[in-house]
Amino acid sequence: MNLILLYDSDYISKDTVVIRDRRFQHITLIQKPQVGDSLRVGLLNGQIGQGTVLQQSRNDITLQVRLDKEPPAALPCTLLLALPRPKMLKRVLQSLAAMGIKDIYLINTYRVDKSYWGSPILEQQINEQLLLGLEQAGDTLMPTVHLRKRFKPFVEDELPDIAKETRALVAHPYNATPCPAARKTATTLAIGPEGGFIPYEVEKLNECGFESIHIGQRILRVETAVPALLSRLFPV
Amino acid sequence: MNLILLYDSDYISKDTVVIRDRRFQHITLIQKPQVGDSLRVGLLNGQIGQGTVLQQSRNDITLQVRLDKEPPAALPCTLLLALPRPKMLKRVLQSLAAMGIKDIYLINTYRVDKSYWGSPILEQQINEQLLLGLEQAGDTLMPTVHLRKRFKPFVEDELPDIAKETRALVAHPYNATPCPAARKTATTLAIGPEGGFIPYEVEKLNECGFESIHIGQRILRVETAVPALLSRLFPV
Repeated sequence: MNLILLYDSDYISKDTVVIRDRRFQHITLIQKPQVGDSLRVGLLNGQIGQGTVLQQSRNDITLQVRLDKEPPAALPCTLLLALPRPKMLKRVLQSLAAMGIKDIYLINTYRVDKSYWGSPILEQQINEQLLLGLEQAGDTLMPTVHLRKRFKPFVEDELPDIAKETRALVAHPYNATPCPAARKTATTLAIGPEGGFIPYEVEKLNECGFESIHIGQRILRVETAVPALLSRLFPV
Repeated sequence: MNLILLYDSDYISKDTVVIRDRRFQHITLIQKPQVGDSLRVGLLNGQIGQGTVLQQSRNDITLQVRLDKEPPAALPCTLLLALPRPKMLKRVLQSLAAMGIKDIYLINTYRVDKSYWGSPILEQQINEQLLLGLEQAGDTLMPTVHLRKRFKPFVEDELPDIAKETRALVAHPYNATPCPAARKTATTLAIGPEGGFIPYEVEKLNECGFESIHIGQRILRVETAVPALLSRLFPV
């Protein structure tokens, strides 16, 4: 937790917050501040800044907050990700939030195990994982996650508008060109499941204007491929 | 497992192997080949190629093997990594092996929790995790992992020779220049622990010729930072 995310409900006055829950636990166990110390804070979907410790009790901590900086810039990238298995989904959501992706479509594909759509993570833990990613990276802007359980209608009816006037790329190692150079440009990136997209799916994406790209001969797990791809596609 | 790694001990003749253990489990549960089907195989530290199923029993599978291709090129990079916590270490070792790193120094730093050095993973599971990474990526060349429990003697006595005539970089977000452009050149890359190197450690690395670099304002977890950095530093 490199930044403590604040919610509107934490405020007891214009510039004072009282923090309880797991954030309080983290502050007292890990950061161990004294009265007068400053902590890095940010308002969810708002600015970042400093919180000065006014008082601490056994159950909460009170901070005087000054927010004066914008959060780090988002990546101009909409990500389409074949729904990964639940454990990996948690880590990938954290990574995506940490790297600054703000629009995530979790999609079904032929090689996505049907049982993954029944994971309780999809109901209960998406926001939690995204918050962990934001806190890690020092960001405040909550990503939006869309679930799309039917590939064909999504690609035919919805994707053309999403991908319109963006650099549209699908990470697919066959008949692919090397990953293009880093560029700060609106991008739609599709990443397949373990085992990859099937040819029909790649065709549908190609028809929708997606170019197949690869990042070399090595086959990477989704959680490794995601930061590797994003890191190549966007400049520092 | 995108490649089945073969060991010398699997061979029962010049071009025939019998596979048991977890690889056999994986083949029969996931790949489910028929007699005559071909599987992607590679000899540990040797070439890759095809294994044709000759026969299967309840306990093993016999393949006729033809190895005729070199494994994917290694990254010309020696990695120094502050020892991460055990669970993360496992994933990071897999990633590093998958991405083609062949020389890994796990080092102690001020912010490495001392207890991590007592993890049984260091004794028993390093090779296992590296093998998983190789199998994932389709590589055969086993990385070497060195443990260095004392920072100062390592940096003073050993590191100058390791880093000599390489592009020596330390990922450290303060007083740093942006990550340089991808280049296929011998590189030594140092990555700190959660919380980063302390100033003394960065100074010692800088004295040894390491340039401080950053990949942006966001603070990433080690398992995300590693593929992000490697992906920026080396071309496809």
